[in-house]
Amino acid sequence: MLSSSTARIDVLKQPTRQDWVEQAIANMDVILLDHSHCERKAAGVALNLMFRYPSNTALVRKLTAIAREELEHFEQVNQWLERLGIPLGFLSSPPYGAGLKAQIRHQEPNRLLDSLLVSGLIEARSHERLGLLAEYCSLPELAQFYRGLMVSEARHYGIYWLLAETYFDSKVVSQRREELAIVESDLLSALHPEPRIHS
Amino acid sequence: MLSSSTARIDVLKQPTRQDWVEQAIANMDVILLDHSHCERKAAGVALNLMFRYPSNTALVRKLTAIAREELEHFEQVNQWLERLGIPLGFLSSPPYGAGLKAQIRHQEPNRLLDSLLVSGLIEARSHERLGLLAEYCSLPELAQFYRGLMVSEARHYGIYWLLAETYFDSKVVSQRREELAIVESDLLSALHPEPRIHS
Repeated sequence: MLSSSTARIDVLKQPTRQDWVEQAIANMDVILLDHSHCERKAAGVALNLMFRYPSNTALVRKLTAIAREELEHFEQVNQWLERLGIPLGFLSSPPYGAGLKAQIRHQEPNRLLDSLLVSGLIEARSHERLGLLAEYCSLPELAQFYRGLMVSEARHYGIYWLLAETYFDSKVVSQRREELAIVESDLLSALHPEPRIHS
Repeated sequence: MLSSSTARIDVLKQPTRQDWVEQAIANMDVILLDHSHCERKAAGVALNLMFRYPSNTALVRKLTAIAREELEHFEQVNQWLERLGIPLGFLSSPPYGAGLKAQIRHQEPNRLLDSLLVSGLIEARSHERLGLLAEYCSLPELAQFYRGLMVSEARHYGIYWLLAETYFDSKVVSQRREELAIVESDLLSALHPEPRIHS
């Protein structure tokens, strides 16, 4: 439905709907605050994976870099919040994250595979949506900031796929990724009433 | 009992005993691996506090900086492990962390106060022990690395106290810090049989 930026992210089954863009652009203060939470959560997810798989050297190395970068973004988004006079605070999470987490199988090695793929899909969706914010946001400097972040999100989802293929057969990876990508798009098929990065 | 480096850390009730130094220096490979876990855990603790108190701007700002720095150290310690041919892997935790965590009261605002003070005490002890490793370690380059880290740990414990005094009366802070510092030293009064940073 939406143009240029979405077409490139072929792992996503459905591009973001126009009504999300309208909701987001009309509520940029909440979106920015939610974005701050997303960056902190992404760092937390990477850290938890390192904690769960302390012997997987490639995973630990790559996820340390991701966690560091997410925290840097967290700091940058918080600087934007301060600049725009938006106070830090709690925000309820949309059902998206929990819905995806529920897809992670409990038994190893499936748990590792699913965890990597779910994180990769979230990064892919974030990449798409930050791209849309960059395209439609009315503040040129903020748009520029989002364009910068997009590049990192794209790198991050690449890293999650690469890690999946480090530990699993690539056919198994693509098959499971397909299944999860369908769920991921389904979870966003109806707009969540509260404006969020993943509403 | 131990000399120069310990004397400066007045918040600690008891300096580290000589037998810890001997145990640590005789098991530098395990100590380095445990140190790697400590840095990742410290980043996790900072992240969890930010998650629990998302509206406390000073806390979020200061702990973001700490978490970023801990992850940088985590990466550096892992580079040392690689250089020395020590594989990453799981290590059981000594009772120290859980013992201190058990002191954190459940009701707010006590929970926040205790969380900050416990983290500060752990940083203070880490500062002292990394100083001892710097002093007694036989690899000059590794000793130099530890000296560098000590400076950060000192800054970190300063930040935790400062945050405590941002949110609480300084008399309340010092009284509770005294109580927790006694527990902290008690937890280390008998050497844990497995070599750890906090054994």
